[in-house]
Amino acid sequence: MANETVFKRLDCNPIVTAANVPRANSIHNSAVVRWNGAYAGVFRVDEIDMCYRLHTGFSRDGLDWEIDPEPLRMTSSDPAVYVSDHSYDPRLVLLEGTHYLTWCNSAPQGPQIGLARTDDFRTFVQMENPFQPPNRNAVLFPRTINGAYAMLHRPSDRGHTPFGDVFYSSSPDLIHWGKHRHVFGPYPGWQGTKVGPGPSPLETPEGWLLIYHGVWGSCNGFLYYAGGALLDLEEPWKVICRTRDYLLAPTMPYERVGDVPNVVFPSAMVHYPETGRVRVYYGCADTCVSAAEADLDELIAFIKQHRIQ
Amino acid sequence: MANETVFKRLDCNPIVTAANVPRANSIHNSAVVRWNGAYAGVFRVDEIDMCYRLHTGFSRDGLDWEIDPEPLRMTSSDPAVYVSDHSYDPRLVLLEGTHYLTWCNSAPQGPQIGLARTDDFRTFVQMENPFQPPNRNAVLFPRTINGAYAMLHRPSDRGHTPFGDVFYSSSPDLIHWGKHRHVFGPYPGWQGTKVGPGPSPLETPEGWLLIYHGVWGSCNGFLYYAGGALLDLEEPWKVICRTRDYLLAPTMPYERVGDVPNVVFPSAMVHYPETGRVRVYYGCADTCVSAAEADLDELIAFIKQHRIQ
Amino acid sequence: MANETVFKRLDCNPIVTAANVPRANSIHNSAVVRWNGAYAGVFRVDEIDMCYRLHTGFSRDGLDWEIDPEPLRMTSSDPAVYVSDHSYDPRLVLLEGTHYLTWCNSAPQGPQIGLARTDDFRTFVQMENPFQPPNRNAVLFPRTINGAYAMLHRPSDRGHTPFGDVFYSSSPDLIHWGKHRHVFGPYPGWQGTKVGPGPSPLETPEGWLLIYHGVWGSCNGFLYYAGGALLDLEEPWKVICRTRDYLLAPTMPYERVGDVPNVVFPSAMVHYPETGRVRVYYGCADTCVSAAEADLDELIAFIKQHRIQ
Amino acid sequence: MANETVFKRLDCNPIVTAANVPRANSIHNSAVVRWNGAYAGVFRVDEIDMCYRLHTGFSRDGLDWEIDPEPLRMTSSDPAVYVSDHSYDPRLVLLEGTHYLTWCNSAPQGPQIGLARTDDFRTFVQMENPFQPPNRNAVLFPRTINGAYAMLHRPSDRGHTPFGDVFYSSSPDLIHWGKHRHVFGPYPGWQGTKVGPGPSPLETPEGWLLIYHGVWGSCNGFLYYAGGALLDLEEPWKVICRTRDYLLAPTMPYERVGDVPNVVFPSAMVHYPETGRVRVYYGCADTCVSAAEADLDELIAFIKQHRIQ
Amino acid sequence: MANETVFKRLDCNPIVTAANVPRANSIHNSAVVRWNGAYAGVFRVDEIDMCYRLHTGFSRDGLDWEIDPEPLRMTSSDPAVYVSDHSYDPRLVLLEGTHYLTWCNSAPQGPQIGLARTDDFRTFVQMENPFQPPNRNAVLFPRTINGAYAMLHRPSDRGHTPFGDVFYSSSPDLIHWGKHRHVFGPYPGWQGTKVGPGPSPLETPEGWLLIYHGVWGSCNGFLYYAGGALLDLEEPWKVICRTRDYLLAPTMPYERVGDVPNVVFPSAMVHYPETGRVRVYYGCADTCVSAAEADLDELIAFIKQHRIQ
Amino acid sequence: MANETVFKRLDCNPIVTAANVPRANSIHNSAVVRWNGAYAGVFRVDEIDMCYRLHTGFSRDGLDWEIDPEPLRMTSSDPAVYVSDHSYDPRLVLLEGTHYLTWCNSAPQGPQIGLARTDDFRTFVQMENPFQPPNRNAVLFPRTINGAYAMLHRPSDRGHTPFGDVFYSSSPDLIHWGKHRHVFGPYPGWQGTKVGPGPSPLETPEGWLLIYHGVWGSCNGFLYYAGGALLDLEEPWKVICRTRDYLLAPTMPYERVGDVPNVVFPSAMVHYPETGRVRVYYGCADTCVSAAEADLDELIAFIKQHRIQ
Repeated sequence: MANETVFKRLDCNPIVTAANVPRANSIHNSAVVRWNGAYAGVFRVDEIDMCYRLHTGFSRDGLDWEIDPEPLRMTSSDPAVYVSDHSYDPRLVLLEGTHYLTWCNSAPQGPQIGLARTDDFRTFVQMENPFQPPNRNAVLFPRTINGAYAMLHRPSDRGHTPFGDVFYSSSPDLIHWGKHRHVFGPYPGWQGTKVGPGPSPLETPEGWLLIYHGVWGSCNGFLYYAGGALLDLEEPWKVICRTRDYLLAPTMPYERVGDVPNVVFPSAMVHYPETGRVRVYYGCADTCVSAAEADLDELIAFIKQHRIQ
Repeated sequence: MANETVFKRLDCNPIVTAANVPRANSIHNSAVVRWNGAYAGVFRVDEIDMCYRLHTGFSRDGLDWEIDPEPLRMTSSDPAVYVSDHSYDPRLVLLEGTHYLTWCNSAPQGPQIGLARTDDFRTFVQMENPFQPPNRNAVLFPRTINGAYAMLHRPSDRGHTPFGDVFYSSSPDLIHWGKHRHVFGPYPGWQGTKVGPGPSPLETPEGWLLIYHGVWGSCNGFLYYAGGALLDLEEPWKVICRTRDYLLAPTMPYERVGDVPNVVFPSAMVHYPETGRVRVYYGCADTCVSAAEADLDELIAFIKQHRIQ
Repeated sequence: MANETVFKRLDCNPIVTAANVPRANSIHNSAVVRWNGAYAGVFRVDEIDMCYRLHTGFSRDGLDWEIDPEPLRMTSSDPAVYVSDHSYDPRLVLLEGTHYLTWCNSAPQGPQIGLARTDDFRTFVQMENPFQPPNRNAVLFPRTINGAYAMLHRPSDRGHTPFGDVFYSSSPDLIHWGKHRHVFGPYPGWQGTKVGPGPSPLETPEGWLLIYHGVWGSCNGFLYYAGGALLDLEEPWKVICRTRDYLLAPTMPYERVGDVPNVVFPSAMVHYPETGRVRVYYGCADTCVSAAEADLDELIAFIKQHRIQ
Repeated sequence: MANETVFKRLDCNPIVTAANVPRANSIHNSAVVRWNGAYAGVFRVDEIDMCYRLHTGFSRDGLDWEIDPEPLRMTSSDPAVYVSDHSYDPRLVLLEGTHYLTWCNSAPQGPQIGLARTDDFRTFVQMENPFQPPNRNAVLFPRTINGAYAMLHRPSDRGHTPFGDVFYSSSPDLIHWGKHRHVFGPYPGWQGTKVGPGPSPLETPEGWLLIYHGVWGSCNGFLYYAGGALLDLEEPWKVICRTRDYLLAPTMPYERVGDVPNVVFPSAMVHYPETGRVRVYYGCADTCVSAAEADLDELIAFIKQHRIQ
Repeated sequence: MANETVFKRLDCNPIVTAANVPRANSIHNSAVVRWNGAYAGVFRVDEIDMCYRLHTGFSRDGLDWEIDPEPLRMTSSDPAVYVSDHSYDPRLVLLEGTHYLTWCNSAPQGPQIGLARTDDFRTFVQMENPFQPPNRNAVLFPRTINGAYAMLHRPSDRGHTPFGDVFYSSSPDLIHWGKHRHVFGPYPGWQGTKVGPGPSPLETPEGWLLIYHGVWGSCNGFLYYAGGALLDLEEPWKVICRTRDYLLAPTMPYERVGDVPNVVFPSAMVHYPETGRVRVYYGCADTCVSAAEADLDELIAFIKQHRIQ
Repeated sequence: MANETVFKRLDCNPIVTAANVPRANSIHNSAVVRWNGAYAGVFRVDEIDMCYRLHTGFSRDGLDWEIDPEPLRMTSSDPAVYVSDHSYDPRLVLLEGTHYLTWCNSAPQGPQIGLARTDDFRTFVQMENPFQPPNRNAVLFPRTINGAYAMLHRPSDRGHTPFGDVFYSSSPDLIHWGKHRHVFGPYPGWQGTKVGPGPSPLETPEGWLLIYHGVWGSCNGFLYYAGGALLDLEEPWKVICRTRDYLLAPTMPYERVGDVPNVVFPSAMVHYPETGRVRVYYGCADTCVSAAEADLDELIAFIKQHRIQ
């Protein structure tokens, strides 16, 4: 494919489809982590009533998945904090030995970020929603930075949001959030309408590696792409460099045709230190899940070389 | 297909395409009835000038169709009642021994419902338009109810109508209409933006069976689905139950790719009492016609089981 | 005033304001008839909770009004026919010895026309709603035409409706309506965006005299004007002539400044055969009620002379 | 005035106009508190370049004001926290002996809430912005609640925001904010499009008294009104009651005519325990400042009596 | 008035209203020049059919005007060049001994610039339209620049144009136009949505003095202001300086209330070398014409001092 | 394919894809001419940063192309005339022995027409931009008409332009343009929203043959089609006839699926006098380039026969 760059799509794509879960209309935009020598995931399953719910899944190799046919149920001591029937676009991160889940937890007042923790991928304890609505995408960093927890997120509106910027906020307790900093915004081209964080950032000697989504508005609606950035290790709201070229664009039939045509939406990244490679999981056309892989050093070199000047 | 439910698509889909009529751009959203031991139909043919006209068609088995290359011409004694060059989305029903055709008969003041009768599928007599514009979908019931003719319809606006509810109206004479009742409206999910009647309702011991279309607005426009409802036999504006899950969703390539991507639009239903089955004809991607079949008892059971609570 | 035409505003304008009713935010767009040697009316009262309700009023001279502080309550044998908390823009007409009230009776599915009859302006019996929603303005003719009841109305959408045409429909029984005819639509200038019927038409030897509203969309929203037309006596959907010049434009401070700036909205017309004059009542800036008078012969001559060619 | 309710406008309205400050285009939506036996304020001054800046002002009686011709300058140790050239709609509250200022501090990513403290109305120390953008209105409570600082605010979008709900958030340190709770949203009528907090709530035995703004969308844009609510003393996100009728509507010429017609925007409330009265300051038509007064007991009784059921 | 700057409004404002012409709805946005020791003008007259036509007018003192009740009729040898029934916003300039008229000459394809010449204000010879539609405002310079005719103009769209920039184009023959240069665009504040040329530029030792209009979009539509700029004498597409503060804002009742509220629209400037003063004529609220005067040196000093940095 | 008309698509379609150029996201909407016994072209290459740039290409047979991996660089003596990073939709024409290139040369003030000349397809000299922005499509005629250069073009707006008409303008010097004439506009059906010129017109005894694009707005955005017209040889703004039926519609998978679904966009036409045939190159789904061929006499006969009456 001429417009593959540093990432190579897996030959077995798509790896998860509606066929993996009874009653599924589509499965896409999902979270995956390495876990206990295998893989665990939280999947966005749109059912045939078009409610969006989160389901856990497990896999030996990250490609062949067993997804729980029942939606994930949170426990919470506070009834004011609830999980919505429109829960979508989960991300996972391992932080201080616990896995944290962020997702878009629709509220009557607009899309809102949900936050939960789990130690076993069976019991999820829902915590306070970090931000006011509307907000559509958020990921935690895998460690505290300067003693505070840190999150990247994208404030939103209540509709099909024609704007989007990446923000950074920090917290002493995972409950109260502040010191909001603008990280970066749209840039002309494939990321000209909105940008938002993808998977949780990966710490590298060159900075935090962030894979993000960019959106372009054609005369027929929105197209979604994947890009990459390096953020300062200690002040991650400072951008070291960021791609001017995309990393992935909707090109394959399973990315072009589906419930929402022309979408690649990166939502998880797994690092293999043993081989120096990374694998990115991404939603395709709001219909299925695929993956693509790159050598980490080549990826960082590509981002630095194809940066916005 | 994971998201097939109680309906099974025919293997020979699509059964009618632009190739069936010279000068056709596309043929979709069409009406079919059993007639004289075979089948008759009225087809929406979008020609290569993108005028939409109605054509009659005949078939031995309902799958292999001879469609008249010339548009259907109405007779009418009143010049104020005309058939537009933008006539589309026909429905047929047998009522008191005569076949009645309803369709969307575009007027300069907006889409409007047309009404005509035929005894032989050669001569069609156009009658008064039942409603003020704008209105986009209407079907007659196959018998009078409490001594009055009865119709389901969807009021509209002049553009791409971001709303839609099903209404019921009755008439003593098929000319004057009144006693307008709201039947049901959108419901969050695949039917969250608009709903409208599909084929003429089928009388069953459990109530009138209505197959209807539901519309969801993504960030890239509208997707069309099929759902089902049971309406009270004597007061059909009262909903007994209605699907929360869809019956059909755009999934197959011929439903996903075409002039308007991601559309299934049910427009005719044939009942086979001899086998207990029903066949639904539906437009695909505003481009071709397909069909799907179900066992009537299973269909009713599905609707009752997967109902909105 | 340079832009007065054949109508002269009363010196005592505005004649009804919010001060006439406790709890009123504004009183405008109201119906008036001569009754028992005096005057009766139905007034649109927007209360301080911004619900719109109808109130009866009585006056010796049509200028000094006693308005009932309690809203009008309808009687109806059918619970499916209800009067909404957003009832507005009433019109009255005497037909076969009974007074009929039409108004905009908002339903959850959009604005809808309500119809009621009264013999004493104390008891109002609500009848079937004549049309499906959305429809925003309707007036009955004061007699049957060719044996049928007749109504002018303006179909609408659910929002701030950027279009509007006058339609004619007829009925054998005031319940079922049909034979819908387009009467006229917008015309470039002050009536370039929408037109709708004002008071019930007045029969004259020259045709039915219709005072109507026209709407122009500036870069700051809509302006409302009054125009006039003569319709064929036996086929009122045929326009004999219609003003190219407006009859009234928002000019006075009470027409320019108020809850909706720059509105004159004609809603009632009283004919004085004894003097050959007519008085038109009109809403001002969605805030108060005023009146203007003309000699009927001069008015008809003006409409014929200043017609759209 | 028929549509005055429990509030009486001052005869000397408007009390502050553009004439109070050289280079002012308009002065409106401003904050006032009692201070040192007199009054201090922070005023929104739109200058003749249509930049919006905050200016301090002082007054002996709260009616006759000396406003500093120079904009207020903040001190801040962190360059990431800046005061914008589009700073507007300030509120003030005395909390633990210090005065805190909140206002809308426009950022390139949308309107954002600013927070500062002052002990002398000369030096203002700007603190962290409490929330991510976009957010348009915020007020602090005058004391901690359950040991945490508390704020009411209205999330927003980047344009002319067609929605608005009141939210409650709390903080251990005035830096980090969390436990976001929905308080109330729009309600049909004058508050049908958006609602947002006005002055800082006043503690009363009946609950926290909140004066808020409500917005209605006519066909010519937005109209702004004032309403009132009582919130639970210990769990202020629980609404005890809230007005169905408005407290103030744009009625006077200085409220109807100006840069944005038909606006009353309450932004400050002064309590006089010595007389049992309150005075509300409000912006008029985005052009000047007025005030209205009520007896506190009567005001609370009005809110309870005219509540949404 | 606090927000008067260097311009002083005339006490006799408004100087032309609808009362000056029979059948006028409003007279505004008009052109005036000194002529034969007195004044001549071309006025935009919106008639009571809301057609916009141009009328000539004459005055001894520029304040008391005789306006021809008949619209100006052009002569033209080419039927392809016509004057529309929606002709508006004229400007005049004396160039090489002839007066040239530019105006907005609506075509079915959008607003378009018209061009005509006159030697006596009785016969106007219409020339080729200089530009493709849509374009809404244009003025000629009073002399050739580097041997070419020169024009400032504002390209537009077909609706209420939410954008606007000033462009410069030149011509060898007043028929063919080229070398299009961008001069300046919107700037945050009162000129944040669009800017367009007002009267023909005045040559001064400091550069070409251009009075222009700026537009701000509030939540209730557009407000129009007047600003000033100095352009390079030989390369007028180069801006020497331009006001950050406005020169005139809608403040007076006749500027705030009318067919389009809150508009001042400068369209003519007369220089009095004998006193060193200039008088600007401007349309008010799309309803009437007013004037304001300044000392030329003070005006230039103001523009230089209050410039955008 | 039922909806092929007189044009036959090449079996080798698509003939140019992203694979032809490193870093290409897509290659479409491109210009081709016969040159030196072979073919030369200028291609629109959207790179993986989604900048649109022009690249030259050469081919022996017009099907197998060598495209320069480096973008075309213009020379120009005037810095005010620049080639944008968003240069797209080129057309080529041979005029007086030189090849002229027109294209859409985006400027900050909107899309704008660029003009350049080349004698060797290596050096391109950029000339003055012919028109003010916004304008999106333009082609030169291959000879002067009545002594003047002539161009067809489509004025536009800055967004996704919901309108479009073909205009004709002429020039004495290729710098200054005037005598703007409306040629034709949209017509209900596939060309109901906008029309614009495709390749440079071909002179035939029957008139100038123009292949143009037409656009239809469905509920899911825009679809692009190809039509044909014959224009008067000496007064080309006069339409002799024009297709009511389209010549090409998006039907093939490579026309239906891509960055912008459902697009055929004709941009070049090569005439083969030796065989009497023409080949049209067209962009497909904003993703690749295809070609279709017809017999010239049959094509002209088709246009005459399937004309708008």
